[in-house]
Amino acid sequence: MVKIVVDCFGGDHSPEANVDGAVRALAEITDLSLILTGDEEKIRTCLEGKTYDAARLSIVHAPEVVGVDEKPTDVIRLKRESSMMKAVKLLREDDEISGMVSTGSTGALVAAGQLRVGRIRGVIRPAFCPVLPTMTGGVVGVCDSGANVDITPDHLVQQAIMGSLYMQYVYGIANPRVALLNIGVEEEKGDDLRKETYGRLKTLPGINFVGNMESRDFISGDYDLVVCDGFSGNVLLKSTEGTALELLKKLKKEIYSKGIYKIGALLMKKMFADMKEFMNYQNYGGSVLLGTAKTMVKGHGSSKDTAVYKCIEQAYKMGKYDLNEKISAALPKEE
Amino acid sequence: MVKIVVDCFGGDHSPEANVDGAVRALAEITDLSLILTGDEEKIRTCLEGKTYDAARLSIVHAPEVVGVDEKPTDVIRLKRESSMMKAVKLLREDDEISGMVSTGSTGALVAAGQLRVGRIRGVIRPAFCPVLPTMTGGVVGVCDSGANVDITPDHLVQQAIMGSLYMQYVYGIANPRVALLNIGVEEEKGDDLRKETYGRLKTLPGINFVGNMESRDFISGDYDLVVCDGFSGNVLLKSTEGTALELLKKLKKEIYSKGIYKIGALLMKKMFADMKEFMNYQNYGGSVLLGTAKTMVKGHGSSKDTAVYKCIEQAYKMGKYDLNEKISAALPKEE
Repeated sequence: MVKIVVDCFGGDHSPEANVDGAVRALAEITDLSLILTGDEEKIRTCLEGKTYDAARLSIVHAPEVVGVDEKPTDVIRLKRESSMMKAVKLLREDDEISGMVSTGSTGALVAAGQLRVGRIRGVIRPAFCPVLPTMTGGVVGVCDSGANVDITPDHLVQQAIMGSLYMQYVYGIANPRVALLNIGVEEEKGDDLRKETYGRLKTLPGINFVGNMESRDFISGDYDLVVCDGFSGNVLLKSTEGTALELLKKLKKEIYSKGIYKIGALLMKKMFADMKEFMNYQNYGGSVLLGTAKTMVKGHGSSKDTAVYKCIEQAYKMGKYDLNEKISAALPKEE
Repeated sequence: MVKIVVDCFGGDHSPEANVDGAVRALAEITDLSLILTGDEEKIRTCLEGKTYDAARLSIVHAPEVVGVDEKPTDVIRLKRESSMMKAVKLLREDDEISGMVSTGSTGALVAAGQLRVGRIRGVIRPAFCPVLPTMTGGVVGVCDSGANVDITPDHLVQQAIMGSLYMQYVYGIANPRVALLNIGVEEEKGDDLRKETYGRLKTLPGINFVGNMESRDFISGDYDLVVCDGFSGNVLLKSTEGTALELLKKLKKEIYSKGIYKIGALLMKKMFADMKEFMNYQNYGGSVLLGTAKTMVKGHGSSKDTAVYKCIEQAYKMGKYDLNEKISAALPKEE
């Protein structure tokens, strides 16, 4: 049995989406048990009329909610009765719990990860690894997407190791193709950070390093994991999502501008719906914070039930495959 | 009369596209004269049968071509007879020439700019400023998109000043909205470089600083100029272009997958053509290297005649409005 705690408050659609996602996860994954944190009465209201295996679901009451604008260190110090910090406490103290999912404040979650949950032995700094759909029907991970902005080659090497194992076990990709985000594909491109990292990754055992990647090829399907600093990873991720969304919006606007286009679009209704669904990040879960001693998955603030379910599935697979153990074993040992 | 030199070799479609672009520029801009560099016989062949004002066009013979993989410093030292280095020599030595356009090697051009053309008095380092179309029908500039990867707040402040004047005079945008690329919109987001730059831009006279911008909003139309380091600017630009291209490819593939979609697409033919044209970077010219003592415009290696024409137009406007003088006057004076 894999035991996961789900913070049910803090997202735009919480607690309904979080509770619904949890109920779906229990139905689809039979060796999973969940603890939901948050206002017990509200959670019970969301559960009313739903069918689920009550033996695998429990609730831990937490009356407070963390706001998105609250200072992370204040949350940790003062918001102990919040659904997020209760979940963190359970994660930290209960040996049977392997992971948690939250759709609340990113800053507070990262801070709680560092200060309360701690790191896997040998990990310098945890890093986010969200995934995006590719043009060949698969997914591509980005590590890091914003947890660390000031880094060294040591961080990037660890991100390659952690991200590669993550793509392998959670997404079933054998021998993931790992690339370094750079401003050109040639080995000598970029600043000292990229040049040194390139040399290190090239000779790193156990990593299928395929060289530098330019951001234009990010979703081509030619790569399984892109390693980068948190600043450029954040730029990469959000500009890819943003461009896709803006174009879809423009397409819609154009279609509504003329009658003949509307008729054309009607014939292509299913195609447009499929395309929208393909680009819908709700289908791809959340960002795992790789490197914390226990699994932490951050769902988007706007997560609906499908996204929450996917986040729980990510945390479940991390637990089931003992990914943190595998990461610890794969990290280069200190001399 | 504005006098521009056009390097006619080095691009994928050169010399034809470069010569055609030059002929079009002469037709559309009456106070422009051009010097074309490259193999004279080949250029004359391209000009055959074309109508143009011969009094405003001259050719300077250059037998050699710079290859994309050649080491920039070798190009400067050894390829003096190349079309690019001949153009650079003319730019440097002829007081009447205000700018040059090239579709050749970026590295060689940047190096020639630094080592042969020099900088505007007070400029620390020249920076590229390409533009992209926005969802509201305008354009947005990115400065820098890859010339400088290791920078300080001083560089970013200069990029804001240069880019803002560029967007104002070359694209006719009054009081351009200048944003700082960051991983969140709040003032305290990002690393020390962004935090210090934010403070400097906020109080910089003559700049309409509107705060931090997340990459997801890049082409929304809410910004006229985005200021960033060359690494993240390159990531931003290429992921935006790459995502648009990949989605267009996917759309095309989907359309061809079913008969009914093909019929639908037929009804929407003009809309798709307009959208493709809207996203076609050939319509937006090249990247100006802002900060060199004389104007240098780098056209994409795959530039066709429209793109070359647009590059010449960019160089022409820079010359006509004396942008380098304006930049020099606007830079904070050293104490």
